[in-house]
Amino acid sequence: MSQLLKHFLSHRNVTNELVKKIEESNYSYKPTETSMSTEKLVTHMYTSYYKFIKTVKVGDGSPFMEKLEHPEFNLSQLGEHYTELSKELLESLTEDELNRDIDMTKIFGMNVTGHQMVQMAIEHEIHHKGNLFVYVREMGHIELPLYMNVK
Amino acid sequence: MSQLLKHFLSHRNVTNELVKKIEESNYSYKPTETSMSTEKLVTHMYTSYYKFIKTVKVGDGSPFMEKLEHPEFNLSQLGEHYTELSKELLESLTEDELNRDIDMTKIFGMNVTGHQMVQMAIEHEIHHKGNLFVYVREMGHIELPLYMNVK
Repeated sequence: MSQLLKHFLSHRNVTNELVKKIEESNYSYKPTETSMSTEKLVTHMYTSYYKFIKTVKVGDGSPFMEKLEHPEFNLSQLGEHYTELSKELLESLTEDELNRDIDMTKIFGMNVTGHQMVQMAIEHEIHHKGNLFVYVREMGHIELPLYMNVK
Repeated sequence: MSQLLKHFLSHRNVTNELVKKIEESNYSYKPTETSMSTEKLVTHMYTSYYKFIKTVKVGDGSPFMEKLEHPEFNLSQLGEHYTELSKELLESLTEDELNRDIDMTKIFGMNVTGHQMVQMAIEHEIHHKGNLFVYVREMGHIELPLYMNVK
């Protein structure tokens, strides 16, 4: 397994573990009026990681314009779906794709290399997983995993 | 400024911005009975990052055994103190220190290179900053920064 894939899964597996604890009755849960709902937060995590990596693959920011909707899936199924797609995409990246500059001026206000996009993707996941830990604890779960799989 | 320092500050500046919003009357706030209090969470973030980087500097896990206490500081002052120390330490790291293997078997169950420790340090910060965003929103703050400074 490549280092990039291992690193991704060391966090994504924890995201998926948290998502499995969330009952459908809590999908609309939000900690405050201005917070994202649980469903929106989790969907944002799964689709964003995929968009970041797809951007590296195609070499421009067009994946961020796509609207991805999967009303047929519950959140666990959405997780399985996007984890598979994201793994395949990550594994397919070539050194050239990782090293090239991508014009993200319209979205982030600057150019970013493929490697930097992969880094931003995992940091975005870790940030929102940090949010999700608080949500899931507030749903009454007290046995929670470590924030990453160390090995 | 080195890439490592720039990367650290792109997240640490956001942590410090959040911490500045926290009033002392909210230091004991916790979202649930089993959550860390705000004071404990923020102290854990600042001291842990420093310990991760000091481990790279000294080449063994001894910094994780140190108990760091600063009852004389409020959380913003603690942030300034450890941000300065952490910046100096990061800037002082040599390529040899970053490339060597560190025996972390007693703490993480494995050896880790200096570079990996620096990566773990920033991910630990991002994770807990993700927690802290929810805490601070629950304290009534709705104007919150982006999770990182992109530039």
